[in-house]
Amino acid sequence: MLTTTVKALMTYVCPSAARRKNRRDKVTIIGAGSVGVALAYTLLTQKKTSELVLIDKSEEQLQGEHMDMIQGAMFMESPRITSTTDYHKTVDSCVVIITVGAVMQEDENEMDAAKRNAEILKEIVPAIVKESPEAVVVVMTQPVDICSYIVWKLSKFPAHRVIGSGTCLQSANFKSLIAERLGVSPSAVQACIIGEPGQKSIPVWSGVTICGVRLKDINADIGTDEDPEDWNYIHKEIVKNSNCIKSIKGHEALSMAQAMAKITSAILEDTRECMPVSTHIRGCRHKDSDAGDRKDVYLSLPCILSSCGVSYIVRQQLTEKEKNLLQKSADKMNEIQSGLDLTLSEMYANK
Amino acid sequence: MLTTTVKALMTYVCPSAARRKNRRDKVTIIGAGSVGVALAYTLLTQKKTSELVLIDKSEEQLQGEHMDMIQGAMFMESPRITSTTDYHKTVDSCVVIITVGAVMQEDENEMDAAKRNAEILKEIVPAIVKESPEAVVVVMTQPVDICSYIVWKLSKFPAHRVIGSGTCLQSANFKSLIAERLGVSPSAVQACIIGEPGQKSIPVWSGVTICGVRLKDINADIGTDEDPEDWNYIHKEIVKNSNCIKSIKGHEALSMAQAMAKITSAILEDTRECMPVSTHIRGCRHKDSDAGDRKDVYLSLPCILSSCGVSYIVRQQLTEKEKNLLQKSADKMNEIQSGLDLTLSEMYANK
Amino acid sequence: MLTTTVKALMTYVCPSAARRKNRRDKVTIIGAGSVGVALAYTLLTQKKTSELVLIDKSEEQLQGEHMDMIQGAMFMESPRITSTTDYHKTVDSCVVIITVGAVMQEDENEMDAAKRNAEILKEIVPAIVKESPEAVVVVMTQPVDICSYIVWKLSKFPAHRVIGSGTCLQSANFKSLIAERLGVSPSAVQACIIGEPGQKSIPVWSGVTICGVRLKDINADIGTDEDPEDWNYIHKEIVKNSNCIKSIKGHEALSMAQAMAKITSAILEDTRECMPVSTHIRGCRHKDSDAGDRKDVYLSLPCILSSCGVSYIVRQQLTEKEKNLLQKSADKMNEIQSGLDLTLSEMYANK
Amino acid sequence: MLTTTVKALMTYVCPSAARRKNRRDKVTIIGAGSVGVALAYTLLTQKKTSELVLIDKSEEQLQGEHMDMIQGAMFMESPRITSTTDYHKTVDSCVVIITVGAVMQEDENEMDAAKRNAEILKEIVPAIVKESPEAVVVVMTQPVDICSYIVWKLSKFPAHRVIGSGTCLQSANFKSLIAERLGVSPSAVQACIIGEPGQKSIPVWSGVTICGVRLKDINADIGTDEDPEDWNYIHKEIVKNSNCIKSIKGHEALSMAQAMAKITSAILEDTRECMPVSTHIRGCRHKDSDAGDRKDVYLSLPCILSSCGVSYIVRQQLTEKEKNLLQKSADKMNEIQSGLDLTLSEMYANK
Repeated sequence: MLTTTVKALMTYVCPSAARRKNRRDKVTIIGAGSVGVALAYTLLTQKKTSELVLIDKSEEQLQGEHMDMIQGAMFMESPRITSTTDYHKTVDSCVVIITVGAVMQEDENEMDAAKRNAEILKEIVPAIVKESPEAVVVVMTQPVDICSYIVWKLSKFPAHRVIGSGTCLQSANFKSLIAERLGVSPSAVQACIIGEPGQKSIPVWSGVTICGVRLKDINADIGTDEDPEDWNYIHKEIVKNSNCIKSIKGHEALSMAQAMAKITSAILEDTRECMPVSTHIRGCRHKDSDAGDRKDVYLSLPCILSSCGVSYIVRQQLTEKEKNLLQKSADKMNEIQSGLDLTLSEMYANK
Repeated sequence: MLTTTVKALMTYVCPSAARRKNRRDKVTIIGAGSVGVALAYTLLTQKKTSELVLIDKSEEQLQGEHMDMIQGAMFMESPRITSTTDYHKTVDSCVVIITVGAVMQEDENEMDAAKRNAEILKEIVPAIVKESPEAVVVVMTQPVDICSYIVWKLSKFPAHRVIGSGTCLQSANFKSLIAERLGVSPSAVQACIIGEPGQKSIPVWSGVTICGVRLKDINADIGTDEDPEDWNYIHKEIVKNSNCIKSIKGHEALSMAQAMAKITSAILEDTRECMPVSTHIRGCRHKDSDAGDRKDVYLSLPCILSSCGVSYIVRQQLTEKEKNLLQKSADKMNEIQSGLDLTLSEMYANK
Repeated sequence: MLTTTVKALMTYVCPSAARRKNRRDKVTIIGAGSVGVALAYTLLTQKKTSELVLIDKSEEQLQGEHMDMIQGAMFMESPRITSTTDYHKTVDSCVVIITVGAVMQEDENEMDAAKRNAEILKEIVPAIVKESPEAVVVVMTQPVDICSYIVWKLSKFPAHRVIGSGTCLQSANFKSLIAERLGVSPSAVQACIIGEPGQKSIPVWSGVTICGVRLKDINADIGTDEDPEDWNYIHKEIVKNSNCIKSIKGHEALSMAQAMAKITSAILEDTRECMPVSTHIRGCRHKDSDAGDRKDVYLSLPCILSSCGVSYIVRQQLTEKEKNLLQKSADKMNEIQSGLDLTLSEMYANK
Repeated sequence: MLTTTVKALMTYVCPSAARRKNRRDKVTIIGAGSVGVALAYTLLTQKKTSELVLIDKSEEQLQGEHMDMIQGAMFMESPRITSTTDYHKTVDSCVVIITVGAVMQEDENEMDAAKRNAEILKEIVPAIVKESPEAVVVVMTQPVDICSYIVWKLSKFPAHRVIGSGTCLQSANFKSLIAERLGVSPSAVQACIIGEPGQKSIPVWSGVTICGVRLKDINADIGTDEDPEDWNYIHKEIVKNSNCIKSIKGHEALSMAQAMAKITSAILEDTRECMPVSTHIRGCRHKDSDAGDRKDVYLSLPCILSSCGVSYIVRQQLTEKEKNLLQKSADKMNEIQSGLDLTLSEMYANK
């Protein structure tokens, strides 16, 4: 189907013009709201993937965002982007990121949000499972630990292939602010925040190391109220800033996009980086973070991310206080989950 | 002011902790609306600058966007970003990008928009001139050619240091869509759209070359209504898509951000790339695009961008038809400008 | 096979630790001399591939180079590199680059070099064909046009999958030096050198365009002896510099490595860039560069490179003089080839 | 001085074509041998600097390497490279890297090598001090700790601005091989090798942490002969491989180039990364690594690198055994230095 102009301009040599697909790095983003679009734009700008599918129910909104990104893509080496309402186009994705419901509605409690979003996930998850049975699914839907649990239950995927965004962003902030205070690069700091995101998140001060030196060995009270240098203001600052952004903008689209881009490339490129993400606890027999009588819950712990999702969970040596806080979060998750279970199993039964 | 923990952790060696400034690449973005924020985010993500200032009147909006970007910056090597209402923080910027008024209001004609935005520019431009008298100013305010002219007049900067975003985005699209139709890389195509952006823009079909071969030498009717292969559908498509995005989203924030990032890095890195931007015509004696009795106007022509802004305007060999269209646009600009002149000189008088 | 320490440190989550292979971008370099090692190092440093195989006969030299690169790779995201004498390790390569014989021996004429290297290629090519029957083969063996022809004949690969490095490096220099003289970016220049590399190479002055403007339309004598601005000194300079490097260092390992890295990524990433490489002429019916009675020869012409090798050859509008020079080169190639033919067919017969 | 062709092609707009210098990142490499050239090529390929000077005594060798790199630079965005025998061209460098004498001659003991290279450094260092009194100097001359000490003494620079390559490469290997054995990314590992490079280097097993968990807390015998998992084979492997490369190739040019590129960019970009480099001990009051009666010596310790060279030395919590080994190295250094002192002071006297 070469036009006359093309024929006159160039001698056709290769028998097949078909683009040979060299990479298997397809990514699907579900939801073209602020968070989904910021993420799509970030993945394109950073060239993390060569094939991106953006899914939404609203055809018009999709079209606007799609065309804007396509126009901009002219300035980059052309990654393919498809925007569609049709899940079939997501077939064989390596990574599927659910951004639907990533923005919590004001004055909604976690239980209500969980119930509302569970209904949405019941529509979305079976379609993901059908089209990309081998995908790693990353959940941003709020509340993120509960919704990751829901997706895991609904998908029947092995736990290592369902991840929640969790405390990943907070942990990066934690590392950076410690590094800033010390005057060193964030790469010289190992530190993480675990548990659930937000006010109840647990900064693991006992495990902060700088070039192999544990801060706690130098300042025994670090992170506690007794610490004369009040390092824990860093954790308070992180929680405050996050709330402030959400109250002004309604979402943390740009920073969450950066965090998700990092998780996505860890999976696509099998980097085996250590990042705290919401992961399944109990089946994995994580001794130190074990919650009571071993209910299945999702909470953030430092994970080694690879092409199969979570390869390992790092067994941190938590203090009693840190363990108790984690237990509390697990208990809360379990309680919220109890209000959801039946519905979920019914759905499967009807299928 | 080292804390006990820092002292116990590290031996202090260097007498001065002051960060030596290795790069002179400060960029100021004026306006923290959709376009300004998308641009700021893009410059940060692509690491085009090490120092960015975002200016807006609304302190709260600024704070939300700023904190969101700062949180995300934890995932990048930390570029400095300052968000402020205070122009003094912009001092000594290399590039200043005006995004205020970059979104045209619906049902507003160009004359009305020009008048409205002229008033805004009268506030902004003197502050820019005062703080960054050596800056290159890039104008995105709509209508872009008129507003670039206004900024040039108000700033009294040499013409090469005032640039409008112009047809830069359309030209990138033009190149890409031609490349796509031919099955070659956009880098193998030289092509541009000149004049004013939008429906009146002029695709210079006479100057499209592929690896040094002029398409017009192969298909004499290319771009005309007689062309059996109807290549000009590409230009129509570009105009249509742009309008479509604007009608759905209200702006082309993401794609414009890409285009502006490209212009910004061409200036900062002195790349001397050829990009069509809105530039001053007449003083520069551009024979082929000369408009009537040599009134000063701004229109897009292919320019060589460097650290001083526009180094050269490429003298294209336009057809009579292309020249006439350019003349028409120049006449229109001149007419709109007439309705603005007095106001501008008065402001200067009062200063 | 997890050690006790690993078990104590991390909870194993993912059932399969097998690294999922996301990209199909295996590259084999044959020959671990100066040129081969510089190329391997460049591909690793620029992260053009995630899997590289370096083949040589000398196990000891291989080991030294291999370990040096592996040690250095610690500073990069670990691309896999295998150094081996065993061709079976190259199985299913996407691109195979033959660097053996890339350094011409002093005082050896082309015919002698061709004969000597033909013998070497007879050993190498069948092994390539066997292990990577779908590969694109890039030939650097000297004389490059003859040796590309030999590889094409020996491999029985379709012509689009056998490429010689050709005038690719000279063309890049040509573009850059024109750009430098004009004060513009090389990306604003379309220009190429065709035919055979070295003194007999043909700078296509008739097709040099800057942002769509043909230099010849401005300076009719450009590139000729009558040109008052003597632009052709650029071509002389390129030839002189190349000879100078070779006489001092014995090879142009670093610059050739850059050129080859560019060709390799064009193929791996299917960029469809236009680069002059040595390609098969005649079967492709390239009218303007057709050599006499249509003998099969390899010479450099501007090609669109894609995942299938050469997708298109651009039909330049050459002057009579340029055509004659190309014809002369083709005649010379044909003559040298005549002295080689029989041997080659015999080898196939014995196989 | 625009030619007719340039004038006909482009309208000249900007009054000054002078390239505005946006970055202050000049790097000088002294010595155009295998190590110097590999480093220059790596810095160019990775675009770590925009201005590079390569110094050598041999004009011809310089010319060959220079032209080869310049030819290759056509494929990159043009960084400036100057190759010269004239130290004046190095004026105002930010970083000066001494590669002269980086290759130890076989069968030469450290004392002899130190004496031989001291003579060479006496010629080089005053020229560096004169042209770039603010530079950070990185020493690769062997034996590296002694030669760093010599450069520090000769230059009279503050200690934080004289660094030796030290155990930087070994440490990167240490980190990578631990990461590989654990199946995690090197970024998840904090680990370093200190002291002198080579067989006497000290792997600090007591300070290896993975995501904040200390391996020693899990495997108390790690790194010792009692360790049932024999982790210390990693250190033996690193020493063996390094010796093997040197015995085959004569140098570790490629891997050392990677290590030096990393150090260079840490300084230029003020990254504050933690890297073990050879640094001044005693003046800096590093308690744990203090050597006897506080003689001045250079040995590798984990340093925070910034634009001023070494900002901090990290105070590791070494075991008694590790401290003793460090003491031994310090004693040895001191002894070798004793045989050099007089010569040095004399040179200064004569100046």
